[in-house]
Amino acid sequence: MFRPEIKVIDCTVRDGGLMNKWQFDTAFVQNVYQATAAAGIDYMEIGYLSSESAFSREEFGPWKFCAEADLKKIIGSEDKKIKLSAMADIGRIDYADIPLRSESSIDMIRVACYVHQVDKAVALAHHCMDKGYETTINLMAVSTVGIRDLNEALEDLSKSRVPIIYLVDSFGAFYSEDIDMLAAKYMERLPGKTIGIHTHNNQQLAFSNTITAIINGVNYLDGSLYGIGRGAGNCPMELLLSFLKNPKFKVRPLIEVIEKDIFPWRDKIDWGYFIPYMVTGVLNEHPRSAMAHMESDRKNQVVEYFDKMNGELGYV
Amino acid sequence: MFRPEIKVIDCTVRDGGLMNKWQFDTAFVQNVYQATAAAGIDYMEIGYLSSESAFSREEFGPWKFCAEADLKKIIGSEDKKIKLSAMADIGRIDYADIPLRSESSIDMIRVACYVHQVDKAVALAHHCMDKGYETTINLMAVSTVGIRDLNEALEDLSKSRVPIIYLVDSFGAFYSEDIDMLAAKYMERLPGKTIGIHTHNNQQLAFSNTITAIINGVNYLDGSLYGIGRGAGNCPMELLLSFLKNPKFKVRPLIEVIEKDIFPWRDKIDWGYFIPYMVTGVLNEHPRSAMAHMESDRKNQVVEYFDKMNGELGYV
Repeated sequence: MFRPEIKVIDCTVRDGGLMNKWQFDTAFVQNVYQATAAAGIDYMEIGYLSSESAFSREEFGPWKFCAEADLKKIIGSEDKKIKLSAMADIGRIDYADIPLRSESSIDMIRVACYVHQVDKAVALAHHCMDKGYETTINLMAVSTVGIRDLNEALEDLSKSRVPIIYLVDSFGAFYSEDIDMLAAKYMERLPGKTIGIHTHNNQQLAFSNTITAIINGVNYLDGSLYGIGRGAGNCPMELLLSFLKNPKFKVRPLIEVIEKDIFPWRDKIDWGYFIPYMVTGVLNEHPRSAMAHMESDRKNQVVEYFDKMNGELGYV
Repeated sequence: MFRPEIKVIDCTVRDGGLMNKWQFDTAFVQNVYQATAAAGIDYMEIGYLSSESAFSREEFGPWKFCAEADLKKIIGSEDKKIKLSAMADIGRIDYADIPLRSESSIDMIRVACYVHQVDKAVALAHHCMDKGYETTINLMAVSTVGIRDLNEALEDLSKSRVPIIYLVDSFGAFYSEDIDMLAAKYMERLPGKTIGIHTHNNQQLAFSNTITAIINGVNYLDGSLYGIGRGAGNCPMELLLSFLKNPKFKVRPLIEVIEKDIFPWRDKIDWGYFIPYMVTGVLNEHPRSAMAHMESDRKNQVVEYFDKMNGELGYV
């Protein structure tokens, strides 16, 4: 049942931080670090690599930047217990601000890009590889990309040295048939590379689409604790590890940290299945307008939101 | 895209009533009736057919019984707007208490049974057919049934006159591969019959498993408003109709009734994705102990519940 090539990446702090500008305190991040390590998860994605010239420390918490001093507060004086990953967005990190891996606690840098940014993403990813990092490119929002553009992007990626390419359902718009088709396409057009999957839960399909990807040979799997993440959130890690049934994984540490550290956030931010997120998923739209509606004092007026989107875009 | 044989059944009142002993008031049921009709849904399952000798009217609301006088309060003086379904459990309804269809507002009776009750279920279903009803048999909890027992049950069902047989994931334990395998088995072993699917959402797979069933040729599809139902609930109807994209379906009436009538129930009963329900889904267990935990004052102490189940049954 167990496929040894499978690696699991926890995105709790990085993707969850999109909901609170990464204002997680040190104890929270330490607890996620300890729990994901105890659970046997392969990587903890702890935030974004961003230049301080691009974002304000007053507005954004430390996990928007992943400065080495902040990472050290999490790891403490003991040996690192789990590999750390950070995401880099095109144009928000200067090459000069990326330390050598030998001088960093980060092990893997995942470069996120849209289809029109693939050349820049490859350049940044090669730069990271040359500094010693494990590296992936996460091609976002492919549910909105035309077939020719996608094929060209995959062609460019196939020629790169980057070993791991992610299929990303940024808008939670894909059904299993889409994942079947795209995973097969990525596998075929990226020979020799490892494929990853990152899903969003707008239509309650994040976990099932991850399973569909596994069946299709995808080996890098993203999840987050109790599904915390932008908008509807991500594939719930506790479901994913329970499904994988690999003896190296332990579910109990996840349940502990969910009870202690994730549950309190349920009262502060609204990730998960809500009608506005469902609507953007069905319509294959960026969740920003749904997030704005959920943050307003009219979040339960879902007919109002439905009508606004229906008028603009047409619903089924 | 549209398969005309597909029929959609709303289980809001019947399965949701398992969470509140069918104590929905008349206005609620009227609003669900109007909304499901306006949405173009094929059947509204309005409750159970039970004999009043089996259950007390003081403890259970009217939709445990589906008396004709109560049905008339919902339908009013106009023509009926949507076909009505009621579920019958083996041993809880006397044949004599089932009126002729010509004297009832119910159109379809769905007989729910466990695998060891198939003979009784066929007898009851034939009785309902002979009284003029559309009839299905819903074989529950097949995730716990051995292959030989299941094959024998399907053999018995294949010999019956009952035209529609349901694949039921009572415990929310099935993954897509299980649905693929079982739907194919039901199709093969029940030639000439229509297959239905009823799912539970313990692992956030109710909607995706319904899609998997559709892909395998299953044509009777159960859902409920915002997924309301026992424990983790059912396939959310608003997701299902959005997926089906059949022009006869309208999503907006569902969003309206969800906002007005379903949202208030979120404060009173806990259906949906919660860790205790996830645990019983992963372990393929009846949700009753999870429901008891959720109804206790320790519902957020999920490690305690996990440890109890882990100690009894072993987890991954």
